[in-house]
This record gives sequence, structure tokens and C-alpha cells, in this order.
Amino acid sequence: MRAIEAEAVVRYTDAAGLPEALSGADVLFVYDFLSTAVPGAWHAADRLRWLHIASAGVDPVLFPGLRESDVVLTNSRGVFDDAIAEYVLGVILAFAKGFARSLDLQRESRWLHRESERVAGREVLVVGTGPIGRAIARLLRAAGLRVSGAGRRARTGDPDFGDVHSTAELTEHLPAADYVVAVAPLTEQTKGMFDAAAFAAMKPSARFVNVGRGELVVTSDLVAALAGGELAGAALDVFETEPLPADSPLWTMENVLVSPHMSGDFVGWRNTLVEVFRENFGRWVAGKPLHNVVDKQLGYVPSPEVRTR
Amino acid sequence: MRAIEAEAVVRYTDAAGLPEALSGADVLFVYDFLSTAVPGAWHAADRLRWLHIASAGVDPVLFPGLRESDVVLTNSRGVFDDAIAEYVLGVILAFAKGFARSLDLQRESRWLHRESERVAGREVLVVGTGPIGRAIARLLRAAGLRVSGAGRRARTGDPDFGDVHSTAELTEHLPAADYVVAVAPLTEQTKGMFDAAAFAAMKPSARFVNVGRGELVVTSDLVAALAGGELAGAALDVFETEPLPADSPLWTMENVLVSPHMSGDFVGWRNTLVEVFRENFGRWVAGKPLHNVVDKQLGYVPSPEVRTR
Repeated sequence: MRAIEAEAVVRYTDAAGLPEALSGADVLFVYDFLSTAVPGAWHAADRLRWLHIASAGVDPVLFPGLRESDVVLTNSRGVFDDAIAEYVLGVILAFAKGFARSLDLQRESRWLHRESERVAGREVLVVGTGPIGRAIARLLRAAGLRVSGAGRRARTGDPDFGDVHSTAELTEHLPAADYVVAVAPLTEQTKGMFDAAAFAAMKPSARFVNVGRGELVVTSDLVAALAGGELAGAALDVFETEPLPADSPLWTMENVLVSPHMSGDFVGWRNTLVEVFRENFGRWVAGKPLHNVVDKQLGYVPSPEVRTR
Repeated sequence: MRAIEAEAVVRYTDAAGLPEALSGADVLFVYDFLSTAVPGAWHAADRLRWLHIASAGVDPVLFPGLRESDVVLTNSRGVFDDAIAEYVLGVILAFAKGFARSLDLQRESRWLHRESERVAGREVLVVGTGPIGRAIARLLRAAGLRVSGAGRRARTGDPDFGDVHSTAELTEHLPAADYVVAVAPLTEQTKGMFDAAAFAAMKPSARFVNVGRGELVVTSDLVAALAGGELAGAALDVFETEPLPADSPLWTMENVLVSPHMSGDFVGWRNTLVEVFRENFGRWVAGKPLHNVVDKQLGYVPSPEVRTR
């Protein structure tokens, strides 16, 4: 932050001190991107013009007061893309090769040969066609999987996804997928989109991967679908309630891989997040248009139209 | 085997019945590729002309009696390549993303955020440049890793490996690798090549992956290197003694992933192995040259010279 301190008065605060620190501030950098402190301090935002958040998802700060204001909202689009893509490929390979079972057997010093699945040629439906979804699609394709996408607008010939289906028709396209990857932004439209009907539409052999937001999923429906054999497994990095409560059945369900909201958090990510803010701050000071401006009605940074071919 | 039974008298036998079954046979198909029964039955091979083994490695049958005979030896080259490549990419991602730790924490219902490593840009040295090594190199490159190889003959411009180093100079090239993948055939030259000196040459942050043969490794040296922090982890699918004895320290060492010689054994592999034999048998009957003829002095099927560019 030293470069920024050279050009501005910087106040560092925790949640409790936010109202006092916000008063008189032009810019708010929400570094603790899971903080829910902003709405409660909003009354003190007397001259705020720009809010930057150190995450890709902006749902924690996209409350009505910000949405209706003139405050510009930017996010950290791009930082997590490739790390999350590697994580998704990793959990797909972990399912296919039975790594969790191998580890459990290893803990018992037990040698038990099993056959494993190939991943080449398997069908993946990536729900969410922003930059993280694109990075996932590119890496999975490179590793030999077949990928399609689901987004706001159906189209063909997308450079990363090939076919993009409309999320409005998601259940029609779920049955073809061996893996369904949720990476959509959390909005009023996407909240709870993975519900009993969606899980019922998946193959019993399909696995569900969530690296988007826990609230995309109706958790009780997911638990019921896994328990009832409607799908074969789930790798979950995000949850409706985080940390995942100790009494959640997800911790102990067979074929569920739980990780603590870390899929994008590669060594060095915190520095990279500050770097993203610093670059945008330089643009702010120079009067240039900011990068990664969120459409506050959509709830994410709209992608430029991708030319179909 | 029905297609073969239509063209030949087929005798099926276990190890005990092998001498009797072998007497008078022209062809021996070693379907149990870990069987050690062939040398002890060799005296009964009174008209054998061809031995086919349902594996890529031929070390279990390459004893002096076969080597010195005129019996042609063929293997199942090609069947396992892509499945093993997926397994190797999977364990590399498992290390980078800390999946074993995530699973251990999950078993305790414990939420503990950690940072993870990227795999893009990491250096991998693949020791063994046969078709399995090539498949590994291609897949890892596709996933963004940097790959070089080690084989009999140093060269540059290899289409899969780029640079291939001479295994005679292996220790010079080990320090650069973040991951070292052992997939060389087991021969007198390669036996025990991964010893204390080799592990000492690796970075303390490096991980070792063995999908070749357990005897490529001096196991006690590997255990000492892991215990002493000379390398950061190992994923082992093959072992000097298989099944791995229950009292082996490898089962319980931190950062060791043990799997039961299954990396190539995808669903359908057994049918594919019979298919490979059936195709070669068709060539035999038709008097055509067999596929996958092993050089019994080298101990593997020599690759055609790859044109350097």
C-alpha cells in the first residue's frame, strides 16, 4: 500500500471502526471481502465515490444502498481465474481416480486395487461464462474433456465454450453432463438455481462442483440428492454458511469433498489483490476509466460480447 | 477370446498348470502380468515361438531363458498411456491444492483456510521417454506445466519433451524440477536409479511421482529423504514389494500418497488388453510382423527415432 500512501491519506480500519473511517473518504477498499460491515456503515459514506472489493464476487457489498447510489463498484476480476481452474481440474481428477478412497485406504494401510475412470471425453457443463468459467473451460478442454457453458444468453461458436446454453433452460442440458461446475455470480436470478429439480435432472453418475457461491445451491436439496443417489458426488469449496457448521452432513457424506473457500487462493494472492487495487487507484488518480466496473443491476462485470464464429 | 478360439486350440491355466499347458504351445499369452510363474515352467516350452504379456513393463518375464531364446516377446504398449498421464496430472494437482490435508481436515469436520500452489509454470522432469512418458509430457504441457525428459540419449527439440537429458547425467538435472516423474522401464541400468544421491539432488520442495516400477527406487533411501526433508512429497503407485507390506513406513508418512498399482487401470482396461493380444494374434496367423516387439536386450520396445527439429 506504500505507493498509495504516497498519493492519498489512507485510513486502515476493522469493521467496528468503519463508520468513523468512512466519513470523509473518497474511496473504500474492502480488503476483507467476506466482511458484512459495509451496509451498517453506509450512513457515514458522506463523499464516497468508489468502492473496490478484493474478490471476484461482489454479493457481500451489493446491498440496495450501494446499488441505488452513484458510487462506482469495482472488483478483482482476473486474479483467481487460473487458480480456480486448476482446482476444478484437480477435483475432477480426484473423483475419476478415486483419490479420497485411496487416502482412506492408506490411513488403514490397506492395499485394495480398483479400476479408475478416464477424464478424457467426459462432458462438463460450466454454469457461468465469466472469466473464471472461461479459464475453467480452457483448462478442461486442454486436458481432453468436452465442455459447454450455461450463461444468460444461448449462443454457439464461443471460443472457450463452443455451445453456451441459456441458464433459463438449464435443466434441459444437465442430463448430458458428467460434471456440472457452478461458477455463476450470485444474483437474485442465480440464487438457489441448483435445487431439487436441477439435481434430479443430472445423471446418477454425475458430480457437482461448486466454486461460485454457496447460495447458488439449495443445500438441503443437494444433501438429499447425494443421499438418494441422484448424483454421484460433489466437490464444494463454498457454502451457504461459511465456515461450514461442524454439524453439516456435508462433512461426513461419502463422495463429498469439502474445502474451505480456498480454490482461488494461491500463494501470493493477497499481494496480487493489493496490486489490482493499486493499478486501479493509479487510473483513478489519473482520471482514467477504472477497470472491472461492476454493473450494479446485473451484479457482475459484464463480459464484452464474444463474437460468434 | 472367442475369436482366437475359432482359430486355435486355447488352453487356459493358472500358475500350477503352466508347465503342462505350455508343452506343445506355439504362443503364450501372460494375462496375469504380475505372475512370476514363467521362468519355472520354461523347461516345458518345447515349441514356443511367441510370448505376449498384458502389460507395458516386461520385467516379470524377461529372465535369461527367454532373453537367450528365439521366442519373440511382445507387450501391451499403448493401453495405459493416457490413463497414467491423467493419474500423474491428478497427483500433481492433489499436491499443489493440498487435497490430502483437506480430506484429513474434512474427516475432523474442521474448517481451516490455507493457500494453495499453482501448477502452471512448474517444472516437471519425466524420467522415461517411452509412450507413457510421452503421454504424461503432453498432458502436463497442455495443463500449463513445463516439461523436460530424461532418456537414454540426450537431445533437443523433441516434440513432446523439448529437451531430453541423458539419464546418465540425471543428478545434474534433478535440482531444477518441482516434480520428478519416474516412468522408465525396469532394466539392469534403471534399477535403483532413484537412490540417496538422486533424492539429495532434488529441491526440498520437490515431489517425486513413481508410476514406473518400484524397483527403480531404493525404497529405504526414499523413506530417509522424505523423513529428512530432502524432498517434500511422493506419490507412489508401484513398490519394490507389492502389495505394499502393512508395516511399510510409506503408508503413514505425511505427504506420501500411496495407491495400489492402479494408475493405468481404467474401467475397461482388461478388455482392451485382450483386444491388443487379439489384434496381434491376427497378425501372427496372417504371417504379418507383430506389433510391440520388445528388444530383449534393452528390455522394452524401442521407440522409433524421433526427428529433432
